[in-house]
Amino acid sequence: MTKKILIINGPNLNMLGTRQPEIYGSATLEDIEERCEAVAESLGLEVVFHQSNSEGDIIDLIHEAKGKYDGLVINAAGYTHTSVAIFDALSILEIPVIEVHISNIYKREEFRHKSLISPAASGIICGFGVKGYELALKSFI
Amino acid sequence: MTKKILIINGPNLNMLGTRQPEIYGSATLEDIEERCEAVAESLGLEVVFHQSNSEGDIIDLIHEAKGKYDGLVINAAGYTHTSVAIFDALSILEIPVIEVHISNIYKREEFRHKSLISPAASGIICGFGVKGYELALKSFI
Amino acid sequence: MTKKILIINGPNLNMLGTRQPEIYGSATLEDIEERCEAVAESLGLEVVFHQSNSEGDIIDLIHEAKGKYDGLVINAAGYTHTSVAIFDALSILEIPVIEVHISNIYKREEFRHKSLISPAASGIICGFGVKGYELALKSFI
Amino acid sequence: MTKKILIINGPNLNMLGTRQPEIYGSATLEDIEERCEAVAESLGLEVVFHQSNSEGDIIDLIHEAKGKYDGLVINAAGYTHTSVAIFDALSILEIPVIEVHISNIYKREEFRHKSLISPAASGIICGFGVKGYELALKSFI
Amino acid sequence: MTKKILIINGPNLNMLGTRQPEIYGSATLEDIEERCEAVAESLGLEVVFHQSNSEGDIIDLIHEAKGKYDGLVINAAGYTHTSVAIFDALSILEIPVIEVHISNIYKREEFRHKSLISPAASGIICGFGVKGYELALKSFI
Amino acid sequence: MTKKILIINGPNLNMLGTRQPEIYGSATLEDIEERCEAVAESLGLEVVFHQSNSEGDIIDLIHEAKGKYDGLVINAAGYTHTSVAIFDALSILEIPVIEVHISNIYKREEFRHKSLISPAASGIICGFGVKGYELALKSFI
Amino acid sequence: MTKKILIINGPNLNMLGTRQPEIYGSATLEDIEERCEAVAESLGLEVVFHQSNSEGDIIDLIHEAKGKYDGLVINAAGYTHTSVAIFDALSILEIPVIEVHISNIYKREEFRHKSLISPAASGIICGFGVKGYELALKSFI
Amino acid sequence: MTKKILIINGPNLNMLGTRQPEIYGSATLEDIEERCEAVAESLGLEVVFHQSNSEGDIIDLIHEAKGKYDGLVINAAGYTHTSVAIFDALSILEIPVIEVHISNIYKREEFRHKSLISPAASGIICGFGVKGYELALKSFI
Amino acid sequence: MTKKILIINGPNLNMLGTRQPEIYGSATLEDIEERCEAVAESLGLEVVFHQSNSEGDIIDLIHEAKGKYDGLVINAAGYTHTSVAIFDALSILEIPVIEVHISNIYKREEFRHKSLISPAASGIICGFGVKGYELALKSFI
Amino acid sequence: MTKKILIINGPNLNMLGTRQPEIYGSATLEDIEERCEAVAESLGLEVVFHQSNSEGDIIDLIHEAKGKYDGLVINAAGYTHTSVAIFDALSILEIPVIEVHISNIYKREEFRHKSLISPAASGIICGFGVKGYELALKSFI
Amino acid sequence: MTKKILIINGPNLNMLGTRQPEIYGSATLEDIEERCEAVAESLGLEVVFHQSNSEGDIIDLIHEAKGKYDGLVINAAGYTHTSVAIFDALSILEIPVIEVHISNIYKREEFRHKSLISPAASGIICGFGVKGYELALKSFI
Amino acid sequence: MTKKILIINGPNLNMLGTRQPEIYGSATLEDIEERCEAVAESLGLEVVFHQSNSEGDIIDLIHEAKGKYDGLVINAAGYTHTSVAIFDALSILEIPVIEVHISNIYKREEFRHKSLISPAASGIICGFGVKGYELALKSFI
Repeated sequence: MTKKILIINGPNLNMLGTRQPEIYGSATLEDIEERCEAVAESLGLEVVFHQSNSEGDIIDLIHEAKGKYDGLVINAAGYTHTSVAIFDALSILEIPVIEVHISNIYKREEFRHKSLISPAASGIICGFGVKGYELALKSFI
Repeated sequence: MTKKILIINGPNLNMLGTRQPEIYGSATLEDIEERCEAVAESLGLEVVFHQSNSEGDIIDLIHEAKGKYDGLVINAAGYTHTSVAIFDALSILEIPVIEVHISNIYKREEFRHKSLISPAASGIICGFGVKGYELALKSFI
Repeated sequence: MTKKILIINGPNLNMLGTRQPEIYGSATLEDIEERCEAVAESLGLEVVFHQSNSEGDIIDLIHEAKGKYDGLVINAAGYTHTSVAIFDALSILEIPVIEVHISNIYKREEFRHKSLISPAASGIICGFGVKGYELALKSFI
Repeated sequence: MTKKILIINGPNLNMLGTRQPEIYGSATLEDIEERCEAVAESLGLEVVFHQSNSEGDIIDLIHEAKGKYDGLVINAAGYTHTSVAIFDALSILEIPVIEVHISNIYKREEFRHKSLISPAASGIICGFGVKGYELALKSFI
Repeated sequence: MTKKILIINGPNLNMLGTRQPEIYGSATLEDIEERCEAVAESLGLEVVFHQSNSEGDIIDLIHEAKGKYDGLVINAAGYTHTSVAIFDALSILEIPVIEVHISNIYKREEFRHKSLISPAASGIICGFGVKGYELALKSFI
Repeated sequence: MTKKILIINGPNLNMLGTRQPEIYGSATLEDIEERCEAVAESLGLEVVFHQSNSEGDIIDLIHEAKGKYDGLVINAAGYTHTSVAIFDALSILEIPVIEVHISNIYKREEFRHKSLISPAASGIICGFGVKGYELALKSFI
Repeated sequence: MTKKILIINGPNLNMLGTRQPEIYGSATLEDIEERCEAVAESLGLEVVFHQSNSEGDIIDLIHEAKGKYDGLVINAAGYTHTSVAIFDALSILEIPVIEVHISNIYKREEFRHKSLISPAASGIICGFGVKGYELALKSFI
Repeated sequence: MTKKILIINGPNLNMLGTRQPEIYGSATLEDIEERCEAVAESLGLEVVFHQSNSEGDIIDLIHEAKGKYDGLVINAAGYTHTSVAIFDALSILEIPVIEVHISNIYKREEFRHKSLISPAASGIICGFGVKGYELALKSFI
Repeated sequence: MTKKILIINGPNLNMLGTRQPEIYGSATLEDIEERCEAVAESLGLEVVFHQSNSEGDIIDLIHEAKGKYDGLVINAAGYTHTSVAIFDALSILEIPVIEVHISNIYKREEFRHKSLISPAASGIICGFGVKGYELALKSFI
Repeated sequence: MTKKILIINGPNLNMLGTRQPEIYGSATLEDIEERCEAVAESLGLEVVFHQSNSEGDIIDLIHEAKGKYDGLVINAAGYTHTSVAIFDALSILEIPVIEVHISNIYKREEFRHKSLISPAASGIICGFGVKGYELALKSFI
Repeated sequence: MTKKILIINGPNLNMLGTRQPEIYGSATLEDIEERCEAVAESLGLEVVFHQSNSEGDIIDLIHEAKGKYDGLVINAAGYTHTSVAIFDALSILEIPVIEVHISNIYKREEFRHKSLISPAASGIICGFGVKGYELALKSFI
Repeated sequence: MTKKILIINGPNLNMLGTRQPEIYGSATLEDIEERCEAVAESLGLEVVFHQSNSEGDIIDLIHEAKGKYDGLVINAAGYTHTSVAIFDALSILEIPVIEVHISNIYKREEFRHKSLISPAASGIICGFGVKGYELALKSFI
């Protein structure tokens, strides 16, 4: 049976391509979505792709994963470092959760070195640019 | 005259019953709401019960309490530890504010030991499970 | 069968009524004892009420609770923030332990924000004035 | 050509006038808006004025500034001290960003002394009461 | 009656124009003085302008403001981060004190993020380059 | 009328004379008591002198001072650095409290640099050897 | 001549056998006393064995060791981590002091990792269960 | 042309399979090596696989990669958290460096949360068990 | 022979009487000087009294004490908390150094709780108001 | 059957006897080895004794203990405070591990107060000089 | 052409020879000056030698170096650890700056371990006694 | 008699010339060795020059210096910041130890600001590039 994977993107990721391209690259979020869908298809996965700037909406999306998806990929962006509530939401899930960061957060500001959500993740992929999403999808095989 | 009490529940509490029952018990939020209404009735109180995963919505709800309610009971869940904005919203109120936590947050992860909102509360009730809401209501008598 | 509850009050609580009444109110410890007995009677509980300024005596009292009481209410006052030994004593008990603070310790000096004994408590009630003892008793029903 | 300035107000600022007037003064947010419009007109600026209690909405508003406004004035209120996501949103902008605080945050609680967003601001104006907005507008001339 | 404003500049500001122009710009202190005088005249203010590299001299200057000036503008430069004595001197004044920084100190080294004197200031203006002095003067109107 | 002064000595001070004489000198506690009595007499004061190794006893002694003494001199020794309960007891008193240390605690181990009780003292005298008690008595004139 | 060794046990050790046997084992304090006496006899030592829950009493006991015993074995239990006064008392002694802990305190809560009294000990034995007392006695040979 | 990838395993990884299998799984290092070779072959990569318990040897191995390999995969195990020297060695390389951890280090002891070498890595893969090595290899395509 | 005592007052003490009289009292520095001279005369001491706002001048004054005075009384005011250089200057002296603070610095802001110069003092007198100078002089007898 | 015990000595212990004899005594490592063999023989134990200055060699030695020895005694010397890798190696063993320190590390520099390996030890013996090795051997009986 | 080197000595160095000779040696500042001149001559350098106890004067001296000297040697003594203003002054210079300390500051009090000015120095020479000045001069060749 | 000086270079220094030349310059370790030999010859010193990436080997080398060399020059590179064992090895020596760093470590990452070995050095030379080795050799004259 086809595994369904939910991909959630957090705040400011809708600005990808225009935001500090030396850090984030020139791909837009739409590019990433297309790429994920192509990779997913090649791997026999089904992906649903979301972005929101709202912490509350992200929590709602995570709750929806419960019972409906076989895996979750999350790039919580700025909320990674400040949201206990998203950590709690992820902790409720019983499916694998992959935390993705486009840039290597350990090469950047000190406050980006601490992820509050990592202890709720199965795996973490960091610093591979947009390829990180692909690696996350491949990990489900 | 009947006192009106507003009860606000924060992020992930809509998942109660399915979330780590060894910590939070098996009661759902609906169970708690019913229980609160029954207790309120027996105490001659009127309760209005809300839940939201959004920090902004919770702030809106708190603002609405001003002038319309005689007391506020709040379980801010994950926002307890990260929200200066909710602390500020509670500080504006001139009615008693009771902070409730279902679990004993001091038996859990270090980051749950610090509540940003406690200094804006009149009283804090922590670790009594869902009975904590009842004790909060009883404190208004 | 009637539940027996031991209530232990720590250092300086014998001075209640004369000590900073703007923080602690004007009730004396005797007033609280009477109030607890009245409430206990109405709830069908039996209470025994102690106060001591000595950390060692408080530990002795806690040890006595083992096997003789069905619940413990403790306001450890100043020892709350400094006594590992009282934490250890409470940890030995297998009955519910309720930690009570008359004032909201989170509105006061930084050093009062950390309770060493909370992880050994079942529940914590803080900031309700002398009514906190009543709520503690009610929690046993 | 007329410069367009976006003014964003964060959580609880809709309660100005009723909130701790000894700190924030008695002007309401509407008063500030009117004052800003009058000052802007006298300076030959066009201002658009927003308030939201939602972190996500504030991020959306900031994104909208990109390419449409010549400057941004932001009083992020409580989110000032907790939001990496708003810092990230401001970092994407290429127009001047002025951070305004009505009160002198350095005379208040320790947790208000650290602004997460200041490194993304061009200039910071703090402690001038509602006049701070006017000074911010004047800085665009 | 004409308001008299004292402007005090701290250590190394006599080197402006030659010091890290990418941070401080190319204006010299004399340029700033002239600009302040022009702005003051246009605003109907009288300004007296000083610079010293000595902490003790700066304290003496602040003391002189008492009873003789209607406002104080101070850029304490390096002493901002290390001088309790200047904080104390400013605390004695009963006139408005505006703290000015040419650069945005929050974009620079960690040790520049903490101002010891801010709690003694009425208002703080930071990051506007030499225009910060003008905004400070305008705040007295 | 003759002022009555209570002098309380904390743990291990009964061993004075035998304990690290290079730090504490060779005077015994009895010597100090005699000296205090002689000085008190010459100053027209009445002194009562106590020593206890028990934190609880020291708290009891402090409580007794209330209403019966005109001043308190306390050398809390090791409890100086660990006892919130003694701080609380001293805070209840409305008479002057002088904190005395025989040695200069700032020349010794780091953990002796922080006194929990100083904020409850009117004055602190430290490092004068046994002469510190005399200075404390003289301060009541 | 027979060496005399004083063994002092601190708070809650009277509850051994009933307290968290997975950590402390099932031996009671009486069992340990008997065992120590047997071992002492076999080694030609004389032991005196005490337990107290009171910090003040423990200090008194330590003082009594001066001049009367040839060695001291102390398990200060919870006071290990909080008592400067016991550290001071031990520092006065001129005989070997052995600090014993039944459990390996470094496998337990963070607050048990710091012993205030270790710098006053000659040797420390930790984690050997009740056998630690025997090793301590053997160290005197 | 075939890319050559060097895989370096740090201390204790030679014990895989016997070491805490609930954390590290039951695969031995030989199993991982075989798996990597199989995957590499399928991807058209050439891999060389090393393990050493010596920090110095690991540095030597890293130096050898310079000019001879197209990529480096390193699981520095315990040295991850303590070795500035390995960080320096990795910083000299100009090929992509992938840091791999078998377990999710953020679910484990606090001291494992900080990697000294991450700022020298291109990408980090953590928590995927032995599959992490495969994902690392796939990232080179 | 008459002992000569040098009294040095640090920054802002020239403003005594006008500076926060609720903290420092209404006596001016001249009043204190007169008082000190009167007390010195009665004790058979000779005093020389200085005040400076300059750290360098204070160091010069301290150097002058060497070989010319029998004791030094210093109220370093704001430099108490920031000056390693004054600490070094005091360390060179071989005469008794008494550190005086008019207010109880432990009841005030956190940054006033740490004196850098105390380890170079023989004795410290704090919180006695202007009487502290008299006690310091008496300590030389 | 004879128990086999492996004794591992870490860096610089080969210099014993010449290194700071006031701290470590005058016995050489060879003396300790002989003493251990004598004691072992008397106890019916077999000991193998190693020293290495190399962290990697020490890890190799620990690995060899697996399945071949009944107990391990380790004095990791300087690596005690810095080696996560040795902690990991010890954690793999299923035999008792005794950590020995010749000096009382809590009387020495701050950085020696924290042992990274203690949580992997069964027991810790510290401060008994070379006798510590003997006590460690005796603990196996 | 002859290089001109400015040598600046900070607070208390005028007391060299009389100040803690076990740390600083018995040479006076005049001795050092003579020695520097002799060495400079032998190296073909010209030196100008200053000492001041005033932070402001030292900053003035540093400013004067701009454009007039080819190198600066500074022993900022106590200001090393507290002066951001001297760091700023040094940062303006475009000539090599050598920071010298007579004693090894890392063997002394903790507060001497942190130099605020080191990041503005080209090179640092520490612990060589008065020979450090000579090495600094030699570094200009 | 000719003084013999041992020069030890730590991890990654074998890569000098290829490693971040903007920080370390373009000289290789062989260049430095030749330069040191030339300088030594001119000074009448004999030098032996080593490099190792292994902490254990470096300790062995230091031990060999005992009794065979008259001075030690060490650039411990990355081990500077992490090795207690090297600090211990250096502490055993009774000859002068000069710590050298090529770059100014205080201009680099925070973790390079703390040297564990400095308290065991006689002198420290930092930031002079490869000339630092020469200055170290000159210090032996």
